[in-house]
Amino acid sequence: MKIEIITIGDEILSGHTVDTNAAFLASSLTDNGFEVSFLSSTGDSIDMMITAFRLALSRAEIIITTGGLGPTDDDITKKAIVKVFKRNLIYHEEILEDIKKRFERRGLEMPAINQNQALLPQGAKIFPNSFGSAVGLCLTENNKTFISLPGVPLEAKQIFNDEVLPFLNNLTQTKSFKIIKLRTTGIIESKLAELIKPKLELTSNVKLAYLPTYGGVDLRIMATGETDEEAEDSALKLKRYLETTVGKYIYGTDNDSLEAVIGQLLIDNDKTLATAESCTGGYLGSLITSIPGASGYFPGGVVTYSNESKQRDINVPLDIIESHGAVSEECAVAMADGCRKKFDTDYALSITGIAGPEGGTDPKPVGTTYIGLASAHNNYARRFNFGN
Amino acid sequence: MKIEIITIGDEILSGHTVDTNAAFLASSLTDNGFEVSFLSSTGDSIDMMITAFRLALSRAEIIITTGGLGPTDDDITKKAIVKVFKRNLIYHEEILEDIKKRFERRGLEMPAINQNQALLPQGAKIFPNSFGSAVGLCLTENNKTFISLPGVPLEAKQIFNDEVLPFLNNLTQTKSFKIIKLRTTGIIESKLAELIKPKLELTSNVKLAYLPTYGGVDLRIMATGETDEEAEDSALKLKRYLETTVGKYIYGTDNDSLEAVIGQLLIDNDKTLATAESCTGGYLGSLITSIPGASGYFPGGVVTYSNESKQRDINVPLDIIESHGAVSEECAVAMADGCRKKFDTDYALSITGIAGPEGGTDPKPVGTTYIGLASAHNNYARRFNFGN
Repeated sequence: MKIEIITIGDEILSGHTVDTNAAFLASSLTDNGFEVSFLSSTGDSIDMMITAFRLALSRAEIIITTGGLGPTDDDITKKAIVKVFKRNLIYHEEILEDIKKRFERRGLEMPAINQNQALLPQGAKIFPNSFGSAVGLCLTENNKTFISLPGVPLEAKQIFNDEVLPFLNNLTQTKSFKIIKLRTTGIIESKLAELIKPKLELTSNVKLAYLPTYGGVDLRIMATGETDEEAEDSALKLKRYLETTVGKYIYGTDNDSLEAVIGQLLIDNDKTLATAESCTGGYLGSLITSIPGASGYFPGGVVTYSNESKQRDINVPLDIIESHGAVSEECAVAMADGCRKKFDTDYALSITGIAGPEGGTDPKPVGTTYIGLASAHNNYARRFNFGN
Repeated sequence: MKIEIITIGDEILSGHTVDTNAAFLASSLTDNGFEVSFLSSTGDSIDMMITAFRLALSRAEIIITTGGLGPTDDDITKKAIVKVFKRNLIYHEEILEDIKKRFERRGLEMPAINQNQALLPQGAKIFPNSFGSAVGLCLTENNKTFISLPGVPLEAKQIFNDEVLPFLNNLTQTKSFKIIKLRTTGIIESKLAELIKPKLELTSNVKLAYLPTYGGVDLRIMATGETDEEAEDSALKLKRYLETTVGKYIYGTDNDSLEAVIGQLLIDNDKTLATAESCTGGYLGSLITSIPGASGYFPGGVVTYSNESKQRDINVPLDIIESHGAVSEECAVAMADGCRKKFDTDYALSITGIAGPEGGTDPKPVGTTYIGLASAHNNYARRFNFGN
């Protein structure tokens, strides 16, 4: 059963609002085994909406819209719906009472304009809204289901999770499915594919997608089956194959983040970490401290942006900077070592590089970066080139 | 002239990636006077793409797609393009050489799979990619222009700004228009509107939009006119009115960022700045150093995440931490003062707060943050509550 999502609003069409509703709805539907076949966005114009609604009804069995259910003049989704479905708007006394009570609870009088929100298409099923005055709507006709939700993300989410998802699960008989995401880092997409492909044998019920992100590439496994067990078995079979071929690049699954996985490793092993950053200016520290509980293993770091600060704050010897440069393997090692001793931690990471746009040379072009690691047993650094 | 944007990728359709490319392209096009009539997203399936491309070509004069130009099997946008335009894919030796060089510069060998990226539709205009191996493409036929960009946001942005926008400006003759964006900080949207509205008189050719962003609210002026001069005069008139009513909240125009404006002020006045961060873990430093040339005024900073580090590294007195707490006005002042002396700078900024989810109390709930500023003449701190 195909589902289309249509998000409505001039602010989305003009790009001034990033459309998070579409992503939320699509991911929730996919994760629950539904097939989203198309996403589109249209403006606050009744003609554009009617065209978009009719097109979607011709292609998909279920249509979900967000936006245009508010009380003001540019909220005209209901007008477009009654045109497409040839129905009237009917006044609902009980909805009006609910809206009035909502304002009363906040110590406010209901503005007259909000009365519009009690006008609903004839025969519509109503999905209550816990957070606002715009209820969700559902019309069913000729085996097509048309669902309309408000555009405020918090409200759309609540109605979708509490009302729409159970309604759709009841409506449709979906196949069993299983999704597993393996998160990799330290390897580019085409290289991963080269390692994975040679012996990959996919049955028709299993799909593998490569999803590049900022810190690496995610491998998403999606398997379907007649039973939950069958779907899970197929997904786990591919997971095991991927672990065999590219396991050393996999740091976690599903919503794991690199900084959280590393934080958990430090906690499990009762170890601590400090950072010394040059070109990244503190960004590594901000990632590490974005994990709740980081204070248990991260006492702090230094941003040694100048050579003076490298010498004064983490004891990088002047002759290393003079003979090898501040962007060098030797300097990265000295930064990590000095930082670890200063903060008295088990490990320290250092980063020094040429961020550009100026400062690149032939042997060390813009993007050249050394990352150093110090521990009680060993200090070393690796060179990377992250391009522009 | 109508423009449609089609973003491509199973990861968008499944909602696992929020579609920032659509918002970026739509807002850039709108800000440059183009009319975006429709946004849609389709998956990595050749049939879906062909349907979406044909539909868009039937409705709009210009179509821009993102995604599906990578080297792996699920990157099939070019295959769909040649089906729709009935052309062949042609091998481009010079593109292959470029891709090889790109890998060489990063010290990597080009995987064989990347050869695909040198196969391009016959007769396509090529838009070079500064950051990656997938070039942008443009086909023109029957007064329709079809542009295809890679899906990696950084690459899509660069090609769009450097290549596509000048190309489209050249292609189309639009009415004269002038857009000015005034960037404000330190005031909320509804309060801004309250100050601006009372005496605001807008003629029909001028529009004012409030665009909330992370660090403040942008005021976007868009004026049209028969001539460039007429449009500019109307825009400047509104700009002067806004400067009179809310001028003290305006820190810049158009693409100015707060960190760049502050950097320029420091350069102009020959002053220097250091940072001491607790809850932000280095994020302020990373913003400051994101500006080219920051090394001229920013020698470095400290991330004093633990109380020990606050004492040892920037001389915060133990009795301040014990009697007022690490999240206090007194501690923020001591952090800024100690940091300024350590780095021997003209100014130092400090941040200490309760990031949550744990650690909140009744007098200091989660989100309570003190920001301190030290100079040679004065030290002070202000309390903020940034909520969750």
